[in-house]
Amino acid sequence: MVRVGVLGPTGYTGIELIRILLRHPQARIVYLASRREERPHIAGIWPALKGRIDMVCSLLETDPVPDMDAALVALPHTVSMRHVPGLLERGVKVVDLGADYRLSDPAVYREWYGVDHADPANLARAVYGLPELFREELAGAGLVANPGCYPTAAALALAPILKAGFVAPEETIIVDAKSGATGAGRSPRPDLHFPEMNESVTAYKVGVHRHTAEMLETVGRLADREVDVLFVPHLIPMDRGILATCYAPLSQPIGLGELKGIYCDMYKGMPFVRVREDDSIPTTKDVSGTNFCDIAVRVAGRFAVAIACIDNLVKGAAGQAVQNMNIMLGIEETVGLL
Amino acid sequence: MVRVGVLGPTGYTGIELIRILLRHPQARIVYLASRREERPHIAGIWPALKGRIDMVCSLLETDPVPDMDAALVALPHTVSMRHVPGLLERGVKVVDLGADYRLSDPAVYREWYGVDHADPANLARAVYGLPELFREELAGAGLVANPGCYPTAAALALAPILKAGFVAPEETIIVDAKSGATGAGRSPRPDLHFPEMNESVTAYKVGVHRHTAEMLETVGRLADREVDVLFVPHLIPMDRGILATCYAPLSQPIGLGELKGIYCDMYKGMPFVRVREDDSIPTTKDVSGTNFCDIAVRVAGRFAVAIACIDNLVKGAAGQAVQNMNIMLGIEETVGLL
Amino acid sequence: MVRVGVLGPTGYTGIELIRILLRHPQARIVYLASRREERPHIAGIWPALKGRIDMVCSLLETDPVPDMDAALVALPHTVSMRHVPGLLERGVKVVDLGADYRLSDPAVYREWYGVDHADPANLARAVYGLPELFREELAGAGLVANPGCYPTAAALALAPILKAGFVAPEETIIVDAKSGATGAGRSPRPDLHFPEMNESVTAYKVGVHRHTAEMLETVGRLADREVDVLFVPHLIPMDRGILATCYAPLSQPIGLGELKGIYCDMYKGMPFVRVREDDSIPTTKDVSGTNFCDIAVRVAGRFAVAIACIDNLVKGAAGQAVQNMNIMLGIEETVGLL
Amino acid sequence: MVRVGVLGPTGYTGIELIRILLRHPQARIVYLASRREERPHIAGIWPALKGRIDMVCSLLETDPVPDMDAALVALPHTVSMRHVPGLLERGVKVVDLGADYRLSDPAVYREWYGVDHADPANLARAVYGLPELFREELAGAGLVANPGCYPTAAALALAPILKAGFVAPEETIIVDAKSGATGAGRSPRPDLHFPEMNESVTAYKVGVHRHTAEMLETVGRLADREVDVLFVPHLIPMDRGILATCYAPLSQPIGLGELKGIYCDMYKGMPFVRVREDDSIPTTKDVSGTNFCDIAVRVAGRFAVAIACIDNLVKGAAGQAVQNMNIMLGIEETVGLL
Repeated sequence: MVRVGVLGPTGYTGIELIRILLRHPQARIVYLASRREERPHIAGIWPALKGRIDMVCSLLETDPVPDMDAALVALPHTVSMRHVPGLLERGVKVVDLGADYRLSDPAVYREWYGVDHADPANLARAVYGLPELFREELAGAGLVANPGCYPTAAALALAPILKAGFVAPEETIIVDAKSGATGAGRSPRPDLHFPEMNESVTAYKVGVHRHTAEMLETVGRLADREVDVLFVPHLIPMDRGILATCYAPLSQPIGLGELKGIYCDMYKGMPFVRVREDDSIPTTKDVSGTNFCDIAVRVAGRFAVAIACIDNLVKGAAGQAVQNMNIMLGIEETVGLL
Repeated sequence: MVRVGVLGPTGYTGIELIRILLRHPQARIVYLASRREERPHIAGIWPALKGRIDMVCSLLETDPVPDMDAALVALPHTVSMRHVPGLLERGVKVVDLGADYRLSDPAVYREWYGVDHADPANLARAVYGLPELFREELAGAGLVANPGCYPTAAALALAPILKAGFVAPEETIIVDAKSGATGAGRSPRPDLHFPEMNESVTAYKVGVHRHTAEMLETVGRLADREVDVLFVPHLIPMDRGILATCYAPLSQPIGLGELKGIYCDMYKGMPFVRVREDDSIPTTKDVSGTNFCDIAVRVAGRFAVAIACIDNLVKGAAGQAVQNMNIMLGIEETVGLL
Repeated sequence: MVRVGVLGPTGYTGIELIRILLRHPQARIVYLASRREERPHIAGIWPALKGRIDMVCSLLETDPVPDMDAALVALPHTVSMRHVPGLLERGVKVVDLGADYRLSDPAVYREWYGVDHADPANLARAVYGLPELFREELAGAGLVANPGCYPTAAALALAPILKAGFVAPEETIIVDAKSGATGAGRSPRPDLHFPEMNESVTAYKVGVHRHTAEMLETVGRLADREVDVLFVPHLIPMDRGILATCYAPLSQPIGLGELKGIYCDMYKGMPFVRVREDDSIPTTKDVSGTNFCDIAVRVAGRFAVAIACIDNLVKGAAGQAVQNMNIMLGIEETVGLL
Repeated sequence: MVRVGVLGPTGYTGIELIRILLRHPQARIVYLASRREERPHIAGIWPALKGRIDMVCSLLETDPVPDMDAALVALPHTVSMRHVPGLLERGVKVVDLGADYRLSDPAVYREWYGVDHADPANLARAVYGLPELFREELAGAGLVANPGCYPTAAALALAPILKAGFVAPEETIIVDAKSGATGAGRSPRPDLHFPEMNESVTAYKVGVHRHTAEMLETVGRLADREVDVLFVPHLIPMDRGILATCYAPLSQPIGLGELKGIYCDMYKGMPFVRVREDDSIPTTKDVSGTNFCDIAVRVAGRFAVAIACIDNLVKGAAGQAVQNMNIMLGIEETVGLL
């Protein structure tokens, strides 16, 4: 039985981690830690957890930390990197769900997040935890950076065609993503107030969302060259789910059958990616509450259009974190996630 | 052309008042006043109004007040009663959309709102503005208390059977109401945060909601004796609308046909109340964005069940306020509201 | 490992049964059967299940039935009772999720469902599967009638006060319930068309919903005398969840503390019922996707108000069915359900 | 007073036309016609209209047609072109809200709609009714083709930059649009069933939606050369609204200020297009229920991103139709629409 801690259990990602771990037959939650001085019972924060877990949230900064095998860190960026080093020193395997260890270059981090990276040494060792694409690096890793929700969807949608070399160089991939509201966090905000957000859709941070940096790095790795990405996120009136519509300019003509073949081949045997071979298009509801990423592809003129659906809290956060943890600890990847 | 002021234009009731007045062929908005020190342009508060009204919100407490014929006051309770006296002194006809002038007895006001009434003199003169039930008092009124959203739905649902004397004395009428989120106001709040409220329903203030006091008074007037009411409001995941399911214990058996007849007769010729004569039941969508109240009735054992649907922001607030204003000013009741 | 069949896997209850069984560590699905002639692959019906279960739906009427230990029957009423006898003859433990075996008296069945009961012999042996209330009968049962979604919520909300004898005789309990749309089934229908149902609430079958019969029987058993119930269901714009607001006329005054004590005492140690001891009120979101029933109680004048929240597809259908199956088979009640 | 007929009043566009016309001070509805044999009262089809209009729907094919000045035709494509010629012969001004007269080339019509055009003579005379872009042609027109909802949003979003010549030739404009459910019509359909569509988003008809043809023609006219468009629509869980995110590849660098200037200049004085000069982005809620199109623009790398929001039933259908009718009849453009 693996002993697991959750740092940051009071947000939507936090409760999702707890839900998954409570069902995980080989994991046991031994530690919850938040920044709330009053050390709340977790079921006081989340009435949904009443009767399922009887545990108080330790104070992150000061309270003693028990022995554990793995820590899942769902703290805001800049906060994570203050706590991860201590965990690593204790020999704890860490999956950080925030942005602090996702960008390999500290200069890029500073550019997009506006602060110097506080832990460049561990950043250099961190592994980017998108198992379907970079699995080989995960096995021995001590620190895994769990990808952002949008970059997860975009990278899985684009990887096959990028690796196959069909994306035109010198052009721009457009990622137009639609996300439910949990991605924006649990703090009340005017634009997330029910009567404002309900029955409405909007775009935000056009071309300047921080996940762009992460996409650029991942897409570049997959293509093995620099690739430009223009990313525009949208907020739509639902709780969970991301649908990313990715427009990749083709370097050469390709038939739909061949394109589907490339996708099916690449994801063959990967338990959490499902490619539509028929002419259907996935909905976010098809993956809601699961760790699946469902993908459909189309050819449209000079573009391949790849559409990926994930649950932003599962494959886009907590589920992928547990998937990473499983791999790091030598547990079968799907345990607790099906 | 009637000159109208709106005090409190920054909430959901405020924008609804403006929308209605902009379409009102005999009214012109001459004054907007809020408590915001920065004197915002109204289209800065409500981008939806850009290009429709070019007006800055005066500071309620200090800025000069122009001449006007009527003021629609959508301020919080306790704030209204500080500003209404001055308006009345200037000879302005006032419709107060808050709770300050709804309860005729200042002692009851203190009991439910926890403060002494600051304007008992005008309270004594105020008329309760539910035109379908108390129309005769409105014509000459200088100050009208616009009913609460829930009491509007409940009173219209129950009036015919109360007036007909079919409600059993010594028993309790139950009003189980379901409301959309705009009724809870525009301030972000954890329980109104989109991912909390969406896909969820809850009850609140069971038996202790302040609208209970208003219902008790109105229902008592209609029955011409004391009538007990148990009121339980619920918050459901939609923007607008109230459906009130009212359970009235019968004093004697009555057939469904007779009951429908009582309802149709009472509301005959009233432009904003529509009674279902067939076997359909209204939905809140049937009245959304309108000043209508749609009603269906049933007999079920010892109970009459009366179901009323309104748009909480229109018949439950801004629409009814304009209806009251029209009547006070001798304008045809429906002007601007169809 | 228990071998389980699901009859009727193509509706919302069907997929929920499959989801739960796929996570159930002691159960294996060996049989899916529907009335579709084309014998569809279950993942063709439910893309969400792709990659999780590789199974074709047998044709219910004609195809061979494999050996199994338990059958979960999610067929429409009148269809169930044609298939249950054969299963029982084979020695299969059956949980019927429809209405065919819920009402103990065939005459009452005929009265509410308009047809003669086709299997009165098994009806006489069927046990009503609400484990929290009638657990002792379940252990040896061969056929369990899984309660309806509304009756589950109402019975759990009302049982403690009924058993404690605090409900006034000769009066009527009112159950005003609010349900999400999955309760209405998967067949497209004008009133369930998204733009009709969204942003709207309505009541339906006022006082004449068939679940009334089931409530009357259950409530009568709990009170050990006849008790009148007036049940009014409402459809609200969300996928899942029922909130039942139950108004029980008190036979004698009771304090809130005492009332809460009665509820806490009765449900102490029952893993799926959670009584709010503080002054909060549950939301349907607190129980969404779970087998929990969350309850809050209040005293309001001459009434006790008991509010129960369940997920209509889990505690109101598939979850409770698996809970019943577990108990029938001697498996720990909560297995697969937490 | 203008006498107006509505052909096809039973769909979502139909009721919106009626709602607008009922408020239009210079128009009177004199004719409603549908294909329903039973000649329903319009308030039987739309309970929301009870008490607002007392009119029976004539049978389109056979019943006599009264004299009228204008006809708003909200019939399905291929049906419109069978009825429009007769109206024109009677000297009635016609706005057709369907697709039959939008594409100037009958061969293109056949290509996208699969049938021969039945009325090429009138097609040759039809004017494309997007007043903000092609106003001069509307004044004397006898037949106006009301644009599709998606093409309206896309054309208004893209017109200024196309006319200014900043879009790179030989490249593709991508239009990624998000629409509410009313755009898909009123007929129940599995994918529009509430529990399927709610809490879900999907793409459909990727690159092959028929509105593509209309966009290609309009965009070509605006650029005065052929321009390629890749259009991908998405269905999101709300009633009304379209947000179109348009990615236009730049032919040369441009600053954000300059770009905004181009947009503000072009739409200056046009009452229904509002360009965001500040750094906000419109939401569909900002235009819900109105004839406005709100637009924001951004520069992102080699792209201009133009985001347009409309209400698909108003500016995207009924509102624009009345706007066109007003212009055709010499009525001030905004009458009935503010």
